[in-house]
Amino acid sequence: MPVFTASVEIHLKPGALDPQGQAVGDGLRSLGYAGVREVRVGKHVRVQLQAADAAAAVQVVERMCQELLANPVMETYRFTVTRDDER
Amino acid sequence: MPVFTASVEIHLKPGALDPQGQAVGDGLRSLGYAGVREVRVGKHVRVQLQAADAAAAVQVVERMCQELLANPVMETYRFTVTRDDER
Repeated sequence: MPVFTASVEIHLKPGALDPQGQAVGDGLRSLGYAGVREVRVGKHVRVQLQAADAAAAVQVVERMCQELLANPVMETYRFTVTRDDER
Repeated sequence: MPVFTASVEIHLKPGALDPQGQAVGDGLRSLGYAGVREVRVGKHVRVQLQAADAAAAVQVVERMCQELLANPVMETYRFTVTRDDER
């Protein structure tokens, strides 16, 4: 069965306060990066999985996000799925 | 000055043990996702910044990664920079 890699970005919802992002933004500005506007810090999950085809892999990753990877109440997620090289 | 958004993925180096990734992988398998192979958990940072042009934005984000966003001893990073819509 082919192997796919999902690249999943998970962030707090846009309206939610993100203290870690604010701290990083303040840190960057204090280092002299004057052009910095908003900074948001979230999680990045890379999942390597076997699936019949790309469409099946996308479906599975969508369910993984809903069931375990993200908290749908507080967080948003988005992901890409790429087929790995044959090995 | 135009506004860009950098999307930065930061992970532990490939050889480094990633207990959080292992825990997520175990969790997914115990939920029935039998096709799961390796899982790695890292950070995702979204930085909105002003810069003269895309090349300047890429240079600035590269420095931000080296100086503050990532720990070059333990972590690897990669990023994309996208120009935001005019506003």
